[in-house]
Amino acid sequence: MKKTIVLTLLLALALTLVACGRRSTPTPTPPPADADSGLPANALAVAQERGLTPDDIYAAMKTYTPSGMMDEYYIFASGGHSGNLIVIGIPSMRILKNIAVFTPEAWQGYGVGELGTEAVLDEGNVDGVDIRSGDTHHPALSETNGDYDGQFVFINDKANARVAVLDLRDFETKQIVKDPNIISNHGSTFVTPNTEYVIQGTQYATPLGWEYAPISDYQEKYRGVITLWAFDREKGRIDMDKSFSIEVPPYWQDLCDSGKLASDGWAFCNSFNAEMATGGIEEGNPPFEAGVSQGDMDYLHIFNWKKAAEVYAAGKTEEINGMPVIRIPTAVEEGILYLAPEPKSPHGADVTPDGKYVVVSGKLDPHITVYAIDKIEKAIADQNWELDPFGIPVLNFDAVKHAQVELGLGPLHSIFDNQGFGYTSLFLDSAVAKWTVGGDDPAAWQLVDKIPVQYNIGHLTAAEGDTVSPDGKYLLVLNKWSVDRFLPVGPLLPQNLQLVDISNGNFKVIYDMPMGIGEPHNAQIIKADKINAWTAYPEVGWDPIAQAPSPYATQLGEERIERNGNEVEIFMTSIRSHLNPEHVEVKKGDHVTWHITNVETAHDATHGFQLGGQSISLSIEPGETASFEFTAENDGTYAFYCTEFCSALHLEMMGYMFVEP
Amino acid sequence: MKKTIVLTLLLALALTLVACGRRSTPTPTPPPADADSGLPANALAVAQERGLTPDDIYAAMKTYTPSGMMDEYYIFASGGHSGNLIVIGIPSMRILKNIAVFTPEAWQGYGVGELGTEAVLDEGNVDGVDIRSGDTHHPALSETNGDYDGQFVFINDKANARVAVLDLRDFETKQIVKDPNIISNHGSTFVTPNTEYVIQGTQYATPLGWEYAPISDYQEKYRGVITLWAFDREKGRIDMDKSFSIEVPPYWQDLCDSGKLASDGWAFCNSFNAEMATGGIEEGNPPFEAGVSQGDMDYLHIFNWKKAAEVYAAGKTEEINGMPVIRIPTAVEEGILYLAPEPKSPHGADVTPDGKYVVVSGKLDPHITVYAIDKIEKAIADQNWELDPFGIPVLNFDAVKHAQVELGLGPLHSIFDNQGFGYTSLFLDSAVAKWTVGGDDPAAWQLVDKIPVQYNIGHLTAAEGDTVSPDGKYLLVLNKWSVDRFLPVGPLLPQNLQLVDISNGNFKVIYDMPMGIGEPHNAQIIKADKINAWTAYPEVGWDPIAQAPSPYATQLGEERIERNGNEVEIFMTSIRSHLNPEHVEVKKGDHVTWHITNVETAHDATHGFQLGGQSISLSIEPGETASFEFTAENDGTYAFYCTEFCSALHLEMMGYMFVEP
Repeated sequence: MKKTIVLTLLLALALTLVACGRRSTPTPTPPPADADSGLPANALAVAQERGLTPDDIYAAMKTYTPSGMMDEYYIFASGGHSGNLIVIGIPSMRILKNIAVFTPEAWQGYGVGELGTEAVLDEGNVDGVDIRSGDTHHPALSETNGDYDGQFVFINDKANARVAVLDLRDFETKQIVKDPNIISNHGSTFVTPNTEYVIQGTQYATPLGWEYAPISDYQEKYRGVITLWAFDREKGRIDMDKSFSIEVPPYWQDLCDSGKLASDGWAFCNSFNAEMATGGIEEGNPPFEAGVSQGDMDYLHIFNWKKAAEVYAAGKTEEINGMPVIRIPTAVEEGILYLAPEPKSPHGADVTPDGKYVVVSGKLDPHITVYAIDKIEKAIADQNWELDPFGIPVLNFDAVKHAQVELGLGPLHSIFDNQGFGYTSLFLDSAVAKWTVGGDDPAAWQLVDKIPVQYNIGHLTAAEGDTVSPDGKYLLVLNKWSVDRFLPVGPLLPQNLQLVDISNGNFKVIYDMPMGIGEPHNAQIIKADKINAWTAYPEVGWDPIAQAPSPYATQLGEERIERNGNEVEIFMTSIRSHLNPEHVEVKKGDHVTWHITNVETAHDATHGFQLGGQSISLSIEPGETASFEFTAENDGTYAFYCTEFCSALHLEMMGYMFVEP
Repeated sequence: MKKTIVLTLLLALALTLVACGRRSTPTPTPPPADADSGLPANALAVAQERGLTPDDIYAAMKTYTPSGMMDEYYIFASGGHSGNLIVIGIPSMRILKNIAVFTPEAWQGYGVGELGTEAVLDEGNVDGVDIRSGDTHHPALSETNGDYDGQFVFINDKANARVAVLDLRDFETKQIVKDPNIISNHGSTFVTPNTEYVIQGTQYATPLGWEYAPISDYQEKYRGVITLWAFDREKGRIDMDKSFSIEVPPYWQDLCDSGKLASDGWAFCNSFNAEMATGGIEEGNPPFEAGVSQGDMDYLHIFNWKKAAEVYAAGKTEEINGMPVIRIPTAVEEGILYLAPEPKSPHGADVTPDGKYVVVSGKLDPHITVYAIDKIEKAIADQNWELDPFGIPVLNFDAVKHAQVELGLGPLHSIFDNQGFGYTSLFLDSAVAKWTVGGDDPAAWQLVDKIPVQYNIGHLTAAEGDTVSPDGKYLLVLNKWSVDRFLPVGPLLPQNLQLVDISNGNFKVIYDMPMGIGEPHNAQIIKADKINAWTAYPEVGWDPIAQAPSPYATQLGEERIERNGNEVEIFMTSIRSHLNPEHVEVKKGDHVTWHITNVETAHDATHGFQLGGQSISLSIEPGETASFEFTAENDGTYAFYCTEFCSALHLEMMGYMFVEP
């Protein structure tokens, strides 16, 4: 009986495989298989040789993406203190692109001498200090009606309280904004349902403008802000002139999420230092890790960004370091800001797809706590609150709490599928919990299943899982340690991203992916067909930062070197397989500004550029005009060349710069 | 009959799979499969749904590396103008680590403020200009008796003629050396069979020391060198005091390879501008791409590095810019340097595993040309030569040529397996040719097969394929374009590394891997068990650059802040989950030097560090002491914190720096 089933199944496979036929690209060497059936006898041998289990074979077929087959989803994953954003395909888990954001990256020609990208990085400098590092945490794809629209992606730098804007037409960073009042953000970036605003919350409180004040002045002078960065979709830029902040207490705000549908207009940020602990282990005080964890409750911040925008428009703000700020008393008076108790040192605050509930994970509490937006609104209407030391209403916990579900140790973050399930990462358990989004009946919120992951999961994300319309199918877990998972690579190990199949009732890890180019925090997953990337720039002579024709565009035949005193300006073109001019003559002491236009229009016809003795690396995509400058301090003969293997005569694509003494 | 074979095969699979059993980690949710047999019915469904062919299924099983299973090989791939080295596993093709070499990288804390790594980068500065870019081309693993020994890896920067040394105990860059006579290398790095020397050849000729000279002085004043960087294995450093160069004509030397076994003592570098073309398209001259390609023959450079070392030891050198150089007349007189004609604009020069032959690929000639070392030695003994314009013997082509094999358009590089086959990349055909290493009989060198690759292959490499003992099994092809291979990511596309199965007579592409973090050139593949990486540094308070205890090591309880006038020195420790001290008080204008020792000894217990308002990123591996410095130009309150998610209380691992006005 069982054997009959087996043979029937296997016969079905055989017929399926025969029906599929062979790949369209002819393979000169036929595989050592049964030639008539086309059956992969070689695959069977591999399964035996490598000891693959049925689970492994399922996973292999699920994740394998043959030559030329495209992935179904893009992952946009932060790179942590690499300061970048990493684009990965699902299900292949191949890294498609490392996008430089807050740190220079030579391959892309980002911030390694190229003037446009250096200017983007300079926007993020702090008090005259050139910042070329960063700590990216939470990418946010732009949304329309609460759904990803594939146009832009935002990401924060926690270390300096900055936010970057990336354009998904060319997958490049276009803008960096620096909050003038805080030095550290974390609850960022999160967008409102139509990307009206990019939400940013403070992490480590300081006096506003990070002014000097001793730690003994903590409660009196230290503050956070929640900043609403206004996004101008047409310009593809954050409009600093329409952005504003809301002052909040020094509670170390952590993660935020925007309301949607039922909770549209609201947003939520939790916090984990309601204790207002101030550390000082070196003086015998409890270290931050202990002081911050003393209390049983912290505060979920509930704020109405639509009301706040009205209050800002009405001018009820105070300008602090150039930024309009709604002060705490105004926020309270206008009904913008409320708090709710939340257990204990929470990390994630995640709104369900229908917008009706906010799920908070208290990392030192084994439960998730679910708040219902209608209960929050009722508690506000009922004024069912007490006041915190700053006069902010603290809603009654029992009045706003809808459900609690015990999941395990160290719950951090939650994400959703399309089958009515939520998934929460359990840091201490190194596991993912699956639970029912129970709706109106609190008892219907229940743990369903748990799977182990390796190891110490931080964030997790799912296909379109934080939109109004999750896709299910795939869950991605971002594990912080990877001991014994991969070949040894010295004391610094990669982290481990695991792909979890959640389709058709499955709940299993199907792929381990080391992340050897950063320390990923959060990620978002978008359906591939939502992104319409350019294959080349719209016209030859394009400025990718301005997304407009470049004033330095140089067409074929317009190449020239202009001199004005000691100022030399070079207008060069690149085309397979030469640069023009090939001889560049300058004099020692000249200040040289050098523009190169890649006059190619073919897809993938990128040229790179480096010049010996100067710290410059350009990647000039088809149509792009790139520029750099330097002062020729040393005389000599220098070689420059195309650094991107563009043609059979690529090595010949070079020239000399002569610096006459 | 056929059905019987099919059913027998499938039954074998079924039994195999049942025998394999389930994974040791229990999966709470059973797969939706036939529960008794454990057969992957779900995998069958995936095959049907995704239209996988038998070839695809074979490839999927061959490359899939389940959770916790280690790869069999490491790939060390250059990152091109990313200036880095990328470590990848075979067969999974997962990126295990991006190692920063010539460019800073924040995740690893390399050159982003950390003093030790900044000093390594500073070693590579050019004439007082800080160089923070590079163009890595050819990695070389250290060898013992012509076989990889897994201890070190070297790589060049073509743009500035530099070579870096990496230690495979911690997979980090330890040294950068700058050639004082040339501004561009390419035929680098290649090691002699016991890593006595790292070979480096010039690419674009300049006057030695890249002195100024107009292009009209080309033949008279422009030169290249072949540098033999002496490697001190004990110190893990290139010993600049024992390194020397051999002057060569301005022929644009390209790739090199060291002889071994039958050719031990010899080395080979080809060249592609025997025309001595000087370009100048802007003045109506033929561009370099045309001028350099005019002649039918270029020159293979054949030099005896053992004799050269004797001549150097005997002091028959001239010191040029601090480097002892064997001038051309001495090289000729001492029998160190010979040339042989080679067709046409060659790119690769590759020595067969037995050392008896050198295979040259003339990229504008459809053949590979095979030279026999015994024929070279006989031609030298017979003085069967003419002289080039520099008085160097040009061996008679017919006397040294052993065989030519017509392969196709654009042959570039060759590599070898353990079955007597060579493989050559064909750039213009976008194909790989497989041919017989024919031995003594010239007619036995023959084309066997060709497979298409996507697209425009540059280098290719195979498992231990350029050692005396290739492994076969896997071939890696490094394709320069990837149009339509992967999801669109804007105008800048990744390149495409394809894994080719060459085991058991196979010759097929089994995996496409986008390289979205660099422009890879060459790669080497080493058996995983040859590398013995550290899991943590040998003791707490370790200086990874010196590979010795750090003078700034700080043990638990030794934390302190020392002040001497305006000089402030901080000795801090990090351990889950706090930094000590947590309050750092300095005064505006102070010069601050800050040391952090990670006192952890557990595997993977890395802590990171960033400080708001300063451009600093540290990655402090278990046991490491890292340092940075800055002048506190601005007063204020700044947050610093651990940037590596190390524990449940990681967010609490922070402190404040107070800069008093």
